[in-house]
Amino acid sequence: MRWSILAFAFDNPSMEKFTPTERTQVRRLPKRGAYDRDTVYAILDAGFICHVGFVTDRGPIVIPTSYGRKDDKLYVHGSAASRMLRTLSDGVPVCVTVTLVDGLVLARSAFHHSINYRSVVVFGHAMAVTEREPKMEALRVISDQIVPGRWNDVRLPNEQELKATTVLEIPLLEASAKIRTGPPVDDEEDYALSVWAGVLPLRTSAGEPLADERMPAGIPVPEYLRNR
Amino acid sequence: MRWSILAFAFDNPSMEKFTPTERTQVRRLPKRGAYDRDTVYAILDAGFICHVGFVTDRGPIVIPTSYGRKDDKLYVHGSAASRMLRTLSDGVPVCVTVTLVDGLVLARSAFHHSINYRSVVVFGHAMAVTEREPKMEALRVISDQIVPGRWNDVRLPNEQELKATTVLEIPLLEASAKIRTGPPVDDEEDYALSVWAGVLPLRTSAGEPLADERMPAGIPVPEYLRNR
Repeated sequence: MRWSILAFAFDNPSMEKFTPTERTQVRRLPKRGAYDRDTVYAILDAGFICHVGFVTDRGPIVIPTSYGRKDDKLYVHGSAASRMLRTLSDGVPVCVTVTLVDGLVLARSAFHHSINYRSVVVFGHAMAVTEREPKMEALRVISDQIVPGRWNDVRLPNEQELKATTVLEIPLLEASAKIRTGPPVDDEEDYALSVWAGVLPLRTSAGEPLADERMPAGIPVPEYLRNR
Repeated sequence: MRWSILAFAFDNPSMEKFTPTERTQVRRLPKRGAYDRDTVYAILDAGFICHVGFVTDRGPIVIPTSYGRKDDKLYVHGSAASRMLRTLSDGVPVCVTVTLVDGLVLARSAFHHSINYRSVVVFGHAMAVTEREPKMEALRVISDQIVPGRWNDVRLPNEQELKATTVLEIPLLEASAKIRTGPPVDDEEDYALSVWAGVLPLRTSAGEPLADERMPAGIPVPEYLRNR
């Protein structure tokens, strides 16, 4: 059953919605679930760190890494010597989760405290990107996701560096988003309590760029690092 | 082999270091690895969102959730109806990863770009906390980890809410930290390039608390929500 859904998705990569499968269907608080590609992609595009889960002969393991998305593909990369990337290159099942924390939800009761967040869970299989051009493009996609504009500024990978880098592609075939927004939802009788309630917004913010001491004098901070 | 290490660790929960095992030994860039409890606990205590990985009959899955640490235990909680918590209660192997992103490392070459981060990977098995007092205490630990001081301000869980909540305890027996700090490390010949290089520090910051519209007038923003 799942495979026929996957096959359908594969034939229709531009379809607007992911078809919920047994494992992407949001069961707890289903109204928080979302399956349309626009929502899933907007969350993926707002982050740059994912948590990659896979199974080794010693059990499950979850590793943080950076990523990039382009169209219906997710890209991760790393050293060709990385155990994670070598394991995933073999096409084992993988789960990639991206979580953005937007705020702390402070209710009147301990029970109704929550977190405002946007998250995406992707299930799939990774494949190594080995051809030179798509590999270089995937690295650009990852770089642009972390620091848009940086790729055009730096010395690009040479042949030796490309060889030392593994790039994996994970097709976005089976995915769902889960989102919570808004104020706390308390039990009706608790609204009268004299307890501060509301949301403490959280976001990732950048500090002042710290210039490397070994930089030649007179190189200005690039525009793309300001106002982040 | 692993089990004997676990047994040793269990007998010595106060030992200062986690003994590296095959799966906690940091292999890529081993100088980034750390195994002392102080380091591992400091990272765990600085976060409140973890990514929990486990295996279902459909493969690996990674779910974000909040957590708390006290002594050599990690606690997670959620609805008693949660599939994740029910699966983990059965004592299946679990991996819990906490990642704190501290900055973007901008090198002269694309290849040497990196991320400053602190992460901890914990392997273990979860057990349900069912007794009333330890369960309440675990919920306090989680609450205090997210918003220190909040627990004393709110209506505490009643019997019905406690029953509707599952709390899991994961003993910290097998864990390691991985940390990157400092400026980019470029190839010697690239230091002469006219490319801005350095670190863009990142941190999670709080905005102005948003008061719930249904709050009675005159309740001030609590001290513990300011200056975060």
